[in-house]
Amino acid sequence: MPDITGTTRLYAVLGDPVDQVRAPGLVNRLFDRLGSDAVLVPMRVRPGDLAAVLAALHAIGNVDGLLVTVPHKVAAARLAGSASAAVRLSGAANALRRDPAGGWHADNFDGAGFLAGLVAAGVDPAGRRVALVGAGGAAASIGPALLGAGVARLSVSDVDTGRAVRLARRLAQAWPGRVVAADRPELGTADLAVNATPLGLRPDDPLPFDPAGVPPGAVVADIVMQPPETALLRAAAALGRRAHPGAAMLVCQLDLYQVFFGLTQRPPGSADPRSQPGDPGQPRERQR
Amino acid sequence: MPDITGTTRLYAVLGDPVDQVRAPGLVNRLFDRLGSDAVLVPMRVRPGDLAAVLAALHAIGNVDGLLVTVPHKVAAARLAGSASAAVRLSGAANALRRDPAGGWHADNFDGAGFLAGLVAAGVDPAGRRVALVGAGGAAASIGPALLGAGVARLSVSDVDTGRAVRLARRLAQAWPGRVVAADRPELGTADLAVNATPLGLRPDDPLPFDPAGVPPGAVVADIVMQPPETALLRAAAALGRRAHPGAAMLVCQLDLYQVFFGLTQRPPGSADPRSQPGDPGQPRERQR
Repeated sequence: MPDITGTTRLYAVLGDPVDQVRAPGLVNRLFDRLGSDAVLVPMRVRPGDLAAVLAALHAIGNVDGLLVTVPHKVAAARLAGSASAAVRLSGAANALRRDPAGGWHADNFDGAGFLAGLVAAGVDPAGRRVALVGAGGAAASIGPALLGAGVARLSVSDVDTGRAVRLARRLAQAWPGRVVAADRPELGTADLAVNATPLGLRPDDPLPFDPAGVPPGAVVADIVMQPPETALLRAAAALGRRAHPGAAMLVCQLDLYQVFFGLTQRPPGSADPRSQPGDPGQPRERQR
Repeated sequence: MPDITGTTRLYAVLGDPVDQVRAPGLVNRLFDRLGSDAVLVPMRVRPGDLAAVLAALHAIGNVDGLLVTVPHKVAAARLAGSASAAVRLSGAANALRRDPAGGWHADNFDGAGFLAGLVAAGVDPAGRRVALVGAGGAAASIGPALLGAGVARLSVSDVDTGRAVRLARRLAQAWPGRVVAADRPELGTADLAVNATPLGLRPDDPLPFDPAGVPPGAVVADIVMQPPETALLRAAAALGRRAHPGAAMLVCQLDLYQVFFGLTQRPPGSADPRSQPGDPGQPRERQR
């Protein structure tokens, strides 16, 4: 971790709670690798304060970007001045940078990070049948990424059936004929079953679905990152199913953050191009 | 610098500009020595945004305290919900912590830090004659500390004579018979002459006063921290006067910050009492 000085650029991850976020460790190591004079810190923000906090952070001159996590992803998408296609499709944002036109520009790398994690693990979803379990913010991000990568059939289920129907309908508008809403997880024919619910975060959570329901050889993927090995993944591995951990989604977002935030490798010891070494310091209160 | 995680408590130093601040290096090393899971970052805040930024930072649950520097010290004192005697006397604040009654509680350690720095260097101002050059925010903080420490006579001068008169009048109310306003720095009889102007920050600044004017054996002190050795201090030393650097004021504030922010030494590896390790992580969006 390089020293923080007055020239250090600032990034933050906003959540409530925020104790569990892994972004500070990962992103600060990225800054270190790149030689960036920048730091990412956690900020615990209550939902009712998000709009004021986003406006204030935009007013802080050395704040370059934000990550947002539960429960702020949908609100951040709404509060941003402009947004990427991934945000418009998912209705959720997880990264904000300054928009040259003013305000924040929102993007969402959850889906792309999840997809990159699968591909890095040797799982190409093109042509596969996917059971997406959960139809909340995470599912809304992952669904478009999987469909964009060529999934043949995506079934969406949720304990709130109406929510599954709404997400499936939205996705089917962009990818007609490949998306269905299901009353229960369509596990029996799945090549890939994805837990896109938060179940697994707590020790006493029930399994989001029974991994025995997926065929041998299918992949069981989790989006829950903490604990790194969820009960679902443990059960899937014990049954001989291939288990894909939630951490891959975040780790694989780092390359995307690097591009989104315009972070560039620079030689050790060289000046950060974003700082202004010519700045003479404090303004004079007066002339003498 | 310890790793920043989701449980890290947040402190910031607010200024405009902020590139020149030294607090991040000093305070983060203090956190490190104490084993605190905390970090201080710089924030560049324009004067017109200060009120909104202070309110938003108060709403961020893991922000524990703020330092404020030029040009925000007077505004921070006004925006705080409660304030110490040092703030009421100086009209300026340089440190804010959460007030249990709500809002920010303001204090000002510039004067106490300056005094502690003098004493640490073996200069006891009790009974001495002091020429305070400059009557702005820094002088308003340093004057009360010197008078409280028993200075016999404090003369206050400023290019803006009205400002010197107003500060001297305010100080004389608390310490009658020991404070005068002067048209020009009262150097000839001074045991201690203090530059409390920002002159010296820029290479082309004129000297705030001519150190040849103070008697041999007198102390010439600067509040300018950058560069560490100002032209004034260089000239004073060349003339055989004792030069007291500006950095002492900040370095000697660290102990005061530690008490003000309630930072306590804890054994390496033990849990930070302010974090909540029992917090189970992300809230559940729903039950399944």
